[in-house]
Amino acid sequence: MEIQVLKNIYESNIQKADEIRKLLKEKKVYMLDIMSSPGSGKTTITDKVIADLKADYAIALIEGDMETTNDARKLAKYNIPIVQIETKLFGGACHLESSWIMGCLEKFNLDQIDVVIIENIGNLVCPAEFELGDDERIVVLSVTEGEDKPVKYPLMFNSCHTLLINKIDLLPYLDFNMDELLENVKRTNPKMEIYKVSAKTGEGMEVFLKALRSRIKNKVGK
Amino acid sequence: MEIQVLKNIYESNIQKADEIRKLLKEKKVYMLDIMSSPGSGKTTITDKVIADLKADYAIALIEGDMETTNDARKLAKYNIPIVQIETKLFGGACHLESSWIMGCLEKFNLDQIDVVIIENIGNLVCPAEFELGDDERIVVLSVTEGEDKPVKYPLMFNSCHTLLINKIDLLPYLDFNMDELLENVKRTNPKMEIYKVSAKTGEGMEVFLKALRSRIKNKVGK
Repeated sequence: MEIQVLKNIYESNIQKADEIRKLLKEKKVYMLDIMSSPGSGKTTITDKVIADLKADYAIALIEGDMETTNDARKLAKYNIPIVQIETKLFGGACHLESSWIMGCLEKFNLDQIDVVIIENIGNLVCPAEFELGDDERIVVLSVTEGEDKPVKYPLMFNSCHTLLINKIDLLPYLDFNMDELLENVKRTNPKMEIYKVSAKTGEGMEVFLKALRSRIKNKVGK
Repeated sequence: MEIQVLKNIYESNIQKADEIRKLLKEKKVYMLDIMSSPGSGKTTITDKVIADLKADYAIALIEGDMETTNDARKLAKYNIPIVQIETKLFGGACHLESSWIMGCLEKFNLDQIDVVIIENIGNLVCPAEFELGDDERIVVLSVTEGEDKPVKYPLMFNSCHTLLINKIDLLPYLDFNMDELLENVKRTNPKMEIYKVSAKTGEGMEVFLKALRSRIKNKVGK
């Protein structure tokens, strides 16, 4: 009986995600969903993506957090529309759901927006289970987290298009085997696009941003 | 209606946790629940705790993972009873529940066990919501994750007795403000016992292990 209820939650989530996909297609808006463990660097990545794109695209941001508006406040400097979802208002949810995203999208004027960025809850498990109707799911993995995460959290790595291997500036101080990580990614999701970056120093971000811009152009038309 | 169902799951979980508490009291067994984000160092901490305690106590281990038995295999070298819970068998659950822990405890001969260690799923959100009937909840936070985690994941930090601030060997290479973290911990859970450690180099582990041994002695009687 419990499983039946979960099924219904998932089903209604998928339905709303489909509605979002349709809406974003009509409005020519590209939507990114950035996910990771707590502290992998989602906010710094988001910061760098906005800084790069904002000259050419109108951006809106959806910030998910269990509690606090810290991240939203950090990114307020860009003067872009931001909606914060504090999941403690939804029973402390460990993920975002498509109906909440639809609620956020309704607060934006989508005719004047090109790109919506979602910063999901810091959690490598649950957010993967909830489609949000986006064009691209990005998982950020910090090299401090170890090589085994793709095989331990296969749903997350399987359901994402893009992997950002972050904090590569720390590699000299870690026992980290990059080949082993890449092997684990390949085993879990051979189609994954992989970028090695340091959001802090900016290393590697250019290559990722160039590819992202080309995907945005395909949909938004500029 | 959904909330009603969740309530029932929590209620039955609390009931089973109470049964576990009663059982462990009767058997004079001390149980630890170690939680953290993915990649914060739970397995290395667990390794060091077993290495230290095993001369004086009979230890059993419960290993929680979404998928893979990697961690259990790493710790098999100690020749202690280990039960692995692969949560993909339970719909990919993002946490452990007390009924599964009871199932594991039934596989051990508790008359010959002093300490049970649970390594929970790598997740700073959901495991906090499920009591397991343990004596001590430990949260491990790697300094690479940033100073803000206690205020962003308050339920986890509020429900744990002990905080291990791990990977302090990396501090020279990070912009990490320890005072800010400690201030955030104090604001979320002023009673928390805090230890700064590097499970990798062993720094700080002795102080934590001494305190842990004294709590174990209080219950186990040796």
